[in-house]
Amino acid sequence: MKVKAIISYDGTNYHGWQIQNNAITVQEIVNNALSKITGEEIEVTGCSRTDSGVHALTYCVSFDTDTTIPLESLSLAVNTVLPSDIRFFSCTQADDDFHARYSATSKTYIYKTDFGKIPNPFMTKYSYHFPYVLNIEDIKKAAKFFLGTHDFKGFMASGGSQKTTVRTVNKLDVSVDGNILTFEINADAYLYNMVRIISGTLLYVGCGKISPDDIPDIINSGDRKRAGITALPQGLYLKEVFYDEN
Amino acid sequence: MKVKAIISYDGTNYHGWQIQNNAITVQEIVNNALSKITGEEIEVTGCSRTDSGVHALTYCVSFDTDTTIPLESLSLAVNTVLPSDIRFFSCTQADDDFHARYSATSKTYIYKTDFGKIPNPFMTKYSYHFPYVLNIEDIKKAAKFFLGTHDFKGFMASGGSQKTTVRTVNKLDVSVDGNILTFEINADAYLYNMVRIISGTLLYVGCGKISPDDIPDIINSGDRKRAGITALPQGLYLKEVFYDEN
Repeated sequence: MKVKAIISYDGTNYHGWQIQNNAITVQEIVNNALSKITGEEIEVTGCSRTDSGVHALTYCVSFDTDTTIPLESLSLAVNTVLPSDIRFFSCTQADDDFHARYSATSKTYIYKTDFGKIPNPFMTKYSYHFPYVLNIEDIKKAAKFFLGTHDFKGFMASGGSQKTTVRTVNKLDVSVDGNILTFEINADAYLYNMVRIISGTLLYVGCGKISPDDIPDIINSGDRKRAGITALPQGLYLKEVFYDEN
Repeated sequence: MKVKAIISYDGTNYHGWQIQNNAITVQEIVNNALSKITGEEIEVTGCSRTDSGVHALTYCVSFDTDTTIPLESLSLAVNTVLPSDIRFFSCTQADDDFHARYSATSKTYIYKTDFGKIPNPFMTKYSYHFPYVLNIEDIKKAAKFFLGTHDFKGFMASGGSQKTTVRTVNKLDVSVDGNILTFEINADAYLYNMVRIISGTLLYVGCGKISPDDIPDIINSGDRKRAGITALPQGLYLKEVFYDEN
């Protein structure tokens, strides 16, 4: 049967999601834990190839198994062999053609920036320290220009292999709590490093390096050099993945 | 001159505040960093002897120095040699008789419990995992009985060396955000492990092991065995220290 599992991980100690030969990844740890518990060779498919240091509040994996362990018990069993920075929350049976990545209809990411002069020691691994005075109203104004369907070619790192660079951003919320600035973005799909480049561009708007009114032109130019920096990975979290059957 | 510094630390990697012979402590790291920057032998006095794994959102230290480094620059300089889980936020000149511990008029601690069935992987080192269905109204009812001046002898671990076990609790707030339960307590001073034992007792109330109406009697009994467990250290944070001159 096909199983859909909802998991969560703190990405600090991993070289990203996707399995690699010479580095510890979340996918490898999850494969090993499921294989150990079921006695099968399990290979999971993840919903997103998160980079090194990127976190997931919720993340979806799919895998095939013939296990007789009740799915309600499988999460608890797998958690007994996982390290404490990766946790299974639920396992449910899915349609045979369910695919954690290709079946997704949209995903929500959040990006956290610590803009305090001195970095908060509790947020070092969980935010990007960008110690500048930020104009939050300018950031909110700029954020609105990203909404809708655009060619995001200028907001992509090299290394992607997509057919089109057109994506639809459904939401880009900006909020502040103390010295922590949070962007929350929902889109149908993402180009490589798209959230981190949009975040870096909004931070450049906040500190006055880019005018909010220039954002439409920067998007239309398709020129990576006109956008802002690629904000660091430790501020990025996958928050939620949506599927039609949800 | 006497300096008062406000710092913050993630206690995960330290064997508590107080210097020890065979373990790394926050006090030792802070002494070494200040000594390196000033070129003097600096020995700081801390406001609280936090246990292994306990955190400090803000923590106050005092020390004597003849440094000519401007105090506005000293925090930034010390941060360059500190590990990222300890940060200096400010250094200001204090009265010669200022003492980080004995001059304090009250302190506020918070205690965080993750009561989700599956532990949140981001909170493992920052909360106590207590996976039970909790009656929050009972906890709030019980919390009120701790307010005021009482002999807290039953809420003390052995190892303290105080003259009296009478303390005044000015505040004990209970709040819930998702699966995280937070207690916030302000008192004039604390007995050894007092916050963790009060927290463990409130958790026992929440899961029905202790009736909220029995709390006054438990306090009056002075019997440690009638109170709840000592909740684990990683859920405890020193939040703020108050002084008359603040």
